[in-house]
Amino acid sequence: MSNTFQIHIHQTHHAIGDFDSIFAYLKTNFGADRATPPLPGLHIFPELFLTGYPLQDLCLQRPFIERYLKFVSQLNQWCKNDFHPGHKDRIAILVGGLQYTFDAQNYPAKIENGLFSLTPGKPLTHLYSKMLLPNYDIFDEKKYFSAGEAVASFTFAEKNIGLMICEDMWPSTMHPCNPVSDLQQLMQKQKRPFDLIVNLSASPYNVGKLNQRLERAKEISHTLQAPFFYCNRVGGEDEILFDGGSFAVDGNKVLGLASQFSSDLLSLPLEKKGQYHPPKEKTVNTWESLFEPRLKTNGPIALLREFGPIDCEEVVKGLCFGLQEYAQKTGHRKFLVAISGGIDSALVAVLAKLSLAPGQVLESIFMPSQFTSSLSYTLASNLAKALEIKMTTLPIKFLHSTVRNAYLDACKEELTGLSDENIQSRLRGALLYAKSNSGGFLVINTSNKSELAVGYSTLYGDSVGAISLLGDLYKTEVYQLSHYINQKYGPLIPEETIDRPPTAELRKGQKDADSLPPYERLDPILEGILSYRLSPSDLMKLGLPQEEIERTYRLYLNSEFKRKQFGPILKLKPKSFGFGYRVPICKKML
Amino acid sequence: MSNTFQIHIHQTHHAIGDFDSIFAYLKTNFGADRATPPLPGLHIFPELFLTGYPLQDLCLQRPFIERYLKFVSQLNQWCKNDFHPGHKDRIAILVGGLQYTFDAQNYPAKIENGLFSLTPGKPLTHLYSKMLLPNYDIFDEKKYFSAGEAVASFTFAEKNIGLMICEDMWPSTMHPCNPVSDLQQLMQKQKRPFDLIVNLSASPYNVGKLNQRLERAKEISHTLQAPFFYCNRVGGEDEILFDGGSFAVDGNKVLGLASQFSSDLLSLPLEKKGQYHPPKEKTVNTWESLFEPRLKTNGPIALLREFGPIDCEEVVKGLCFGLQEYAQKTGHRKFLVAISGGIDSALVAVLAKLSLAPGQVLESIFMPSQFTSSLSYTLASNLAKALEIKMTTLPIKFLHSTVRNAYLDACKEELTGLSDENIQSRLRGALLYAKSNSGGFLVINTSNKSELAVGYSTLYGDSVGAISLLGDLYKTEVYQLSHYINQKYGPLIPEETIDRPPTAELRKGQKDADSLPPYERLDPILEGILSYRLSPSDLMKLGLPQEEIERTYRLYLNSEFKRKQFGPILKLKPKSFGFGYRVPICKKML
Repeated sequence: MSNTFQIHIHQTHHAIGDFDSIFAYLKTNFGADRATPPLPGLHIFPELFLTGYPLQDLCLQRPFIERYLKFVSQLNQWCKNDFHPGHKDRIAILVGGLQYTFDAQNYPAKIENGLFSLTPGKPLTHLYSKMLLPNYDIFDEKKYFSAGEAVASFTFAEKNIGLMICEDMWPSTMHPCNPVSDLQQLMQKQKRPFDLIVNLSASPYNVGKLNQRLERAKEISHTLQAPFFYCNRVGGEDEILFDGGSFAVDGNKVLGLASQFSSDLLSLPLEKKGQYHPPKEKTVNTWESLFEPRLKTNGPIALLREFGPIDCEEVVKGLCFGLQEYAQKTGHRKFLVAISGGIDSALVAVLAKLSLAPGQVLESIFMPSQFTSSLSYTLASNLAKALEIKMTTLPIKFLHSTVRNAYLDACKEELTGLSDENIQSRLRGALLYAKSNSGGFLVINTSNKSELAVGYSTLYGDSVGAISLLGDLYKTEVYQLSHYINQKYGPLIPEETIDRPPTAELRKGQKDADSLPPYERLDPILEGILSYRLSPSDLMKLGLPQEEIERTYRLYLNSEFKRKQFGPILKLKPKSFGFGYRVPICKKML
Repeated sequence: MSNTFQIHIHQTHHAIGDFDSIFAYLKTNFGADRATPPLPGLHIFPELFLTGYPLQDLCLQRPFIERYLKFVSQLNQWCKNDFHPGHKDRIAILVGGLQYTFDAQNYPAKIENGLFSLTPGKPLTHLYSKMLLPNYDIFDEKKYFSAGEAVASFTFAEKNIGLMICEDMWPSTMHPCNPVSDLQQLMQKQKRPFDLIVNLSASPYNVGKLNQRLERAKEISHTLQAPFFYCNRVGGEDEILFDGGSFAVDGNKVLGLASQFSSDLLSLPLEKKGQYHPPKEKTVNTWESLFEPRLKTNGPIALLREFGPIDCEEVVKGLCFGLQEYAQKTGHRKFLVAISGGIDSALVAVLAKLSLAPGQVLESIFMPSQFTSSLSYTLASNLAKALEIKMTTLPIKFLHSTVRNAYLDACKEELTGLSDENIQSRLRGALLYAKSNSGGFLVINTSNKSELAVGYSTLYGDSVGAISLLGDLYKTEVYQLSHYINQKYGPLIPEETIDRPPTAELRKGQKDADSLPPYERLDPILEGILSYRLSPSDLMKLGLPQEEIERTYRLYLNSEFKRKQFGPILKLKPKSFGFGYRVPICKKML
């Protein structure tokens, strides 16, 4: 074992409120039962390690509070009596947890997102509270938490440790203070440099986020003239993915990087090279520049960056992880996908297959109607064969005509047009869920972001599902990912599925292109509206066709009601449909 | 016309972003085209009158911002050139609107919820910004707005007017400052009493809220020793109802009260009686005491207060209003309710009928299965007769058996148990929407809060619908409301519908009581969990049976995924399912 001071980054993975498993992790790593002494040094854990994140309303509910307080009291007891005696004075643990202040009626009067030390023999000690509370997009921290008022440092083994929690590293014009410059001032006041900075995080994933975090950490390391140790949470919480990817940097140097989308333990010696060159200009980030893509050019292509292979691999890993997280946390071991011979359902089936853990089952169901081409049948069954999954064929042709007859009898009118298209989709939804109910399958939704954005789906029909894998991917990205997958994993998705013109097959000869602008223009228009918040006139200035912009914008405005009833969408982008997208249905925008 | 100073409370009703209609209102009331001069005096309008509320993400989107800025510029032009010349110097208008500050890239850097004056000949002048930004439950104001930093007064016609916006009147331990005491200090500093206080509001409705507002306004009138004029918005915005009910109070005296759930204009002379007795103790409200019901007794009955006739009348008005708002704003003139012979669907049909405007249509559809009793048919058709609405009978018996056969053929297994129950509900959902698509009907959901809380409904089945009327009413409240309606409006709901034991009729002899605790205990247990956030052990201390509490709590925890995909629920209570209820699906709570 090294004699240098070690830092252990515990990139942990526990469900929200799973106090037993959180406690068990600590016991395994530090308990008296261990055969060997725990690793000496500084152990750091994620933000809100003791509870999980995001808790939303749970942190206000007494059943949750009672269980948390009981856990903390057991933890204190354990720390006193059952901590392993080895290296006792050479171990300190920093964890994130909630700091409650109660009123006279025992209701929470104040809740802080806190940083605590846990040292052998001593109870949990509150050292610091998060100063910057993110409250944009999916974040609601100002709804629940009170902000800490001052930065803090912690001394252990003669090391001066600067403390941060997640957002504290992203001061911006949106925030009331700047913990990075406050720490700089603290250092000057204490007349003592920092030996290291720690940041305990629960930072949600999006494509490319890891790099953003590394770059920002390097800046802070330069500014505070110390190595920066970053511990991030791992977990899929409904739509939000925490990807881990913990790291340490010193100046421009990356000292270590933990895995993405799985728990990890990264142990590193403390090395301070001292090669810092504090930035001349202070970067003041704005909310916009940090968390939104920004227009960099005047060309429409720049609206939607193409995924490179690294992005694709990350997205595949993220989606597989998110699906498994949802399934395991809701107690499912069986997955069901309705496949149509089209690309969306094929990609979903492949992703589900790639995610499977031993003992899990994936099945598919194909539900042809009178409008389903024989090509669709061939492609669906080829997909099922390539994936080695069961495909149940459940034709809806006769059901559809039975419904039409029943409807005609009862309502004295034919089902035609949109009603007749939608009923097919809804019969499929009902049958899919019959199989789900019957066999305990988790139904995976197959809609993509382009469809969701323009409402090109049937509510309670193809929009059904417990969780959506593609709801944050535009159709053009679905193609990019499909090509990548076939290159990397072999020809899982039939080439003709990729090549054929997209169709819902709800009427004779129907093509997506009959109703929607071509995806290569639709998707940039949508990204402009959704992520860049551009107006139709902004988009026209970028050279996109007026008619297509206006049609798309109208479809987008009129489909809000469908998105409100959509299931959780695994979040891959800074701006996604779901919890962080808050737009009223009722409004006048044209 | 009176020579005394008049205050005109414009309780307006415009859709979010409907700048044309907002502008038209101002032109009608103050334009040069008027035959008579506008009313002299002080005109007050609701919070964010110029935009509508709540805007959510809209206030960050350029299409919205562009339209708003254009409107403001037209308004300023109009003010200069087209204001009616009569009583010119004796008119001032106070309105709520957005105050944007833009960054170099023309993105909003700061948005304030502002109060503006509009005086003939002068452009819109920003006087004050809301200091207390509500950010609990349905409120997300800290996500979008920056808080004002100081109180302000406005002088017009030698009157000293104290300014407030909505939440400013509810300082609490949750807020960083107290605008009421700040105004008191301002008065002392200015050595000049206030002649009146105005509060521009967009205050969401819940049962009994009007009284809470009046009581609080009286306190403030005493504290600031001036009459208090309160102008509230009218409108249904998805799930949120703004009920108006504007008023003026002076000390303990109510000077005037505007209508609830409709636009109104309340003109009152300024009278200052001077009978103030400032409260000896300063009430510091907490978030909990203001916005949650609190336990007052140790008996379980107190958990759920029974609706009195005044509450019932208010709820009926609120629900009719909310339904019409949603329908009109989404462009519907036809309503559709699936009636079953049960009480929930009967109450929904009655409420829809009571809400109808001239030229609108309400229809019902009855979809019996093999398990539907003849009593259900009789009661459904009696209801339709009593309401004079068309009832289409669309039996699902044959469809159901066709589906069962198709499923058996394809899946080589029978549909049984829950799968067989759910498929009936989902076939009904599909047929209901076939009719909706075919005739352009708005489908009204019929689930109640008790069902929603325990997941006693079928996702994509009886849970479908564009808008939910009963989703914030427990089953026991559905009964209270039904009795009230039959007393007030005649026997619309068949007595046997009220008296029969509740059943979903999805299998032979099924009763709600087979799966759920009796509603008279289920509902208080649920209210304890949802509104008071009690733990099972708290509920046991209140004398409720342990087995029923634990079963209910487990059902509640396990049904979060259904609530996530539910449509908008008209909000009637401080704590409702919907936008303000934020609970993760994935969590470990047992």
